[in-house]
Amino acid sequence: MGASAESEVHQLVAVLGVGVVDDADQPVLCADDLGLTRGDGCFDATRIVTDADGTSLIDHLETHLDRFARSAAGLEIPFDTDAWRSLVADATAAWTQPGEAVLRVMLTRGREATPGAPVTGLLTIASIHESALAGRAGISVATLDRGHAADMFTEVSWLLGGIKTLSYAVNVAAGREAKRRGVDDALFISSDGFALEGPRAALLWRTGDRLATTPIDGTGILASITQAVVFERAAAQGVSVSYELITVDDLVRSDGAWFLSSGRLVAPILQLDDVQLASDPSYTERVWGWATGTGNSSLP
Amino acid sequence: MGASAESEVHQLVAVLGVGVVDDADQPVLCADDLGLTRGDGCFDATRIVTDADGTSLIDHLETHLDRFARSAAGLEIPFDTDAWRSLVADATAAWTQPGEAVLRVMLTRGREATPGAPVTGLLTIASIHESALAGRAGISVATLDRGHAADMFTEVSWLLGGIKTLSYAVNVAAGREAKRRGVDDALFISSDGFALEGPRAALLWRTGDRLATTPIDGTGILASITQAVVFERAAAQGVSVSYELITVDDLVRSDGAWFLSSGRLVAPILQLDDVQLASDPSYTERVWGWATGTGNSSLP
Repeated sequence: MGASAESEVHQLVAVLGVGVVDDADQPVLCADDLGLTRGDGCFDATRIVTDADGTSLIDHLETHLDRFARSAAGLEIPFDTDAWRSLVADATAAWTQPGEAVLRVMLTRGREATPGAPVTGLLTIASIHESALAGRAGISVATLDRGHAADMFTEVSWLLGGIKTLSYAVNVAAGREAKRRGVDDALFISSDGFALEGPRAALLWRTGDRLATTPIDGTGILASITQAVVFERAAAQGVSVSYELITVDDLVRSDGAWFLSSGRLVAPILQLDDVQLASDPSYTERVWGWATGTGNSSLP
Repeated sequence: MGASAESEVHQLVAVLGVGVVDDADQPVLCADDLGLTRGDGCFDATRIVTDADGTSLIDHLETHLDRFARSAAGLEIPFDTDAWRSLVADATAAWTQPGEAVLRVMLTRGREATPGAPVTGLLTIASIHESALAGRAGISVATLDRGHAADMFTEVSWLLGGIKTLSYAVNVAAGREAKRRGVDDALFISSDGFALEGPRAALLWRTGDRLATTPIDGTGILASITQAVVFERAAAQGVSVSYELITVDDLVRSDGAWFLSSGRLVAPILQLDDVQLASDPSYTERVWGWATGTGNSSLP
């Protein structure tokens, strides 16, 4: 499965049109690939859980492939769903490391030196760091200005709102800024004061019996699959769910807030800047149950 | 020199810490390199001109290495100037294809699977497409909203203003939008109506005997080396130069505008959206002379 012996992280690499490669440490991308030189491509990622026998289950694979295809369409990069489905099947069969891992698919426009060349497609599976899972117990978050108004992303397709591109340097830099401020994560705020999303997570908050998240239209945020799953299952249990813009002041007065993402799944936000947020562990258990589809499950 | 036989584009690839590779079509980057997976790295590029004997001259190498080092510092990625200088020397010695080419250096944070691993450094030299040079005769440009105010990039280091990151997907998408509108290039406009820069070029305009460009502070635009060179040489000839914010309306009323960049160097903007701009070929010759340091040179 190509895991590197020296590395603590088990990893598998597969190439679209080729299959699983023998050695995950083997280079697979040319120096002029536009995914590298311009961040000109897209990706998607989900959780894969493998049991002691090496049998794996992938969270919401088809929904992630749908979003991946939409990202590719937004970038006008050809997309072959069947080829990706086949590559995922090969990779999953080859992956036997028990535990939670992230399955990531990446698509680039291909090589700059050979116009009309085929796209580049890569898949990786890598065990999730313990540190990433620690956030499930609770995180502290700093608000960071994202620089644009909350209604900016209307009819500005070139700004690539809602597209999960490989150009994530700002998201990574926001994570560094959070560390610099001594907190775990960041929450992007629009220039007019509304909460948007985390660099790698969607925002969920509760007011009484109502759950809400940031609307996608206009804000440029990514459509979160974990949030959609939580909304669907919560609504099925009669919980009111809605898409709203919320100011930081109102978020601080809410009855609880969470970051939702495909790997860590649910991370309760315990502190926002210098303010402690309301936190109800039993409600976090409900959110965890909706995210994982395990109904009455407890936190791990 | 590793040029691909099938490709029309001559190309050379070199790897930091390794040197020039035998085959430019050989993969050099791992699937989990953060330069690919997150666009988490920086680059710089300049022109290299090679004569019939295979001797090359690089435009402003030290200035580009300085800016490259500043980009790395902004991303907190270690930078070894001597190692880069040595790699550039090796690559230049190996490159003998006569004509104009782009020398590009790229630095990434390294591999995700091996925290603490060394950074990844790559260098490419590739002949410039004829189509890219065609812009020297004049281009049509569409204005595109960049989504943020012109004074946004103050004390928001995580937005990476002025850093030439590998996360260029929006810049590439702006180029696609320009093509969609039937024009050659794009000019980013701030949400409050000021001209910023092109996706891959700085803006220069003339009003009478004065030259001006967009200020860097607050706007988040890249410090253009070609613009700095033009300002220095123009000022040495007594031309007044300044950094100013200009609205699109005022730009349309100017006495001429140009895009400046390290490869194409000087491209007169003949049309902005639906409006013909003033254009004086003799002044474009002066700008070309300042950009190339060839005093009285004519356009190629």
